[in-house]
Amino acid sequence: MSYVLYYSPGAASMAVHWMLLEIGVPFEARLVDIDTGQQHDPEYLRLNPAGRVPTLIVDGEPRHESAALLMLLAERHADAGLAPAPGSAARAEWLEWMIYLANTLLPAMRDWFYAGSDGDPAGAQAVRALARRRIEHACARLDTHLADGHAYLAGGKLSTADLLALVLMRWTRNMPRPATEGWPHLASYIRRLRARRAFIEVNEREKLTEWRNDDQ
Amino acid sequence: MSYVLYYSPGAASMAVHWMLLEIGVPFEARLVDIDTGQQHDPEYLRLNPAGRVPTLIVDGEPRHESAALLMLLAERHADAGLAPAPGSAARAEWLEWMIYLANTLLPAMRDWFYAGSDGDPAGAQAVRALARRRIEHACARLDTHLADGHAYLAGGKLSTADLLALVLMRWTRNMPRPATEGWPHLASYIRRLRARRAFIEVNEREKLTEWRNDDQ
Repeated sequence: MSYVLYYSPGAASMAVHWMLLEIGVPFEARLVDIDTGQQHDPEYLRLNPAGRVPTLIVDGEPRHESAALLMLLAERHADAGLAPAPGSAARAEWLEWMIYLANTLLPAMRDWFYAGSDGDPAGAQAVRALARRRIEHACARLDTHLADGHAYLAGGKLSTADLLALVLMRWTRNMPRPATEGWPHLASYIRRLRARRAFIEVNEREKLTEWRNDDQ
Repeated sequence: MSYVLYYSPGAASMAVHWMLLEIGVPFEARLVDIDTGQQHDPEYLRLNPAGRVPTLIVDGEPRHESAALLMLLAERHADAGLAPAPGSAARAEWLEWMIYLANTLLPAMRDWFYAGSDGDPAGAQAVRALARRRIEHACARLDTHLADGHAYLAGGKLSTADLLALVLMRWTRNMPRPATEGWPHLASYIRRLRARRAFIEVNEREKLTEWRNDDQ
């Protein structure tokens, strides 16, 4: 199994980058410099026509969509235990969280950051207001779930759902209400996940210094 | 394996209802009357705190998120062949389409229909304008993919991705540009899927008469 990951620091690709480190499989990481517009280079667009990150080259084939890549990697590396096994009681819960994050939180984040470029800039304020409402609603939902004796989102142990959730929570750090403020169970979950060796490692590899635990 | 599906005619639950018929497994279907607000009944909210459909009771546990339910059913009934097998070449493509539909088209549809109730009604027009742009972009993407010799979205045969896509395409029928108009490959795909016995059956069971092939 060979992997080449095209990533941008702190983007959705970070969840896949982190997962590859959690699995401990060899891979090559290639930086796509969003600031200089490398995602629109014809060479990159051949791999990812939407001009987004991540792209993961899986055995020679370019694959996309961060949530799908996490699920694919979980399946290809079942020994890493990053998804409940098919047929297990926790499987439905894990699928439900993966899809919830993908169809609720991820698109609201896209709206928050790209309302003015995806759509008419004149309407961006209204789009962002709804996005903020949805993001804070999702944070509250995560907090409630974690308050209920859950240390992780699904199956009582770390899974791809936590990797995706943490990267999305990271994006709230400069929002009016960051995920670390006012949702105590969510804040404690965030601290616990940020302490993982592979998360510290992915921050170092992507040269990210913000949003790390103070003692690391 | 026992299933109870809570559905509303033509809602996202339709994809799950259709799938249960494709699989041919016994299930009980219970109507949630959205028009009279049954989705907000305390009894239903205990099964689905978000007050949405579908809820699928799987061996006694309430489960949610239509895309997740389709993936779960595909896995529990692998013999029905509604998802490429884990480890197969088409698996990544299928996961990618499932996530693309869930995180791009589904939330844009929610915006189109619920902008005024999910958010500030004053901002609804701007939210709906962006939603329409995204929905039409997704229709164009589907059309391009299908133009490229593909009869189905993933793996060269019917999968859960097609069931989800068709139900989402159905929702465009009263939009300014329905999916059946102006995207010829998509229109032909829609006609082909609508001719399936289980799709005709789910329309009958949900008492839906719109958006069927003329000869059926």
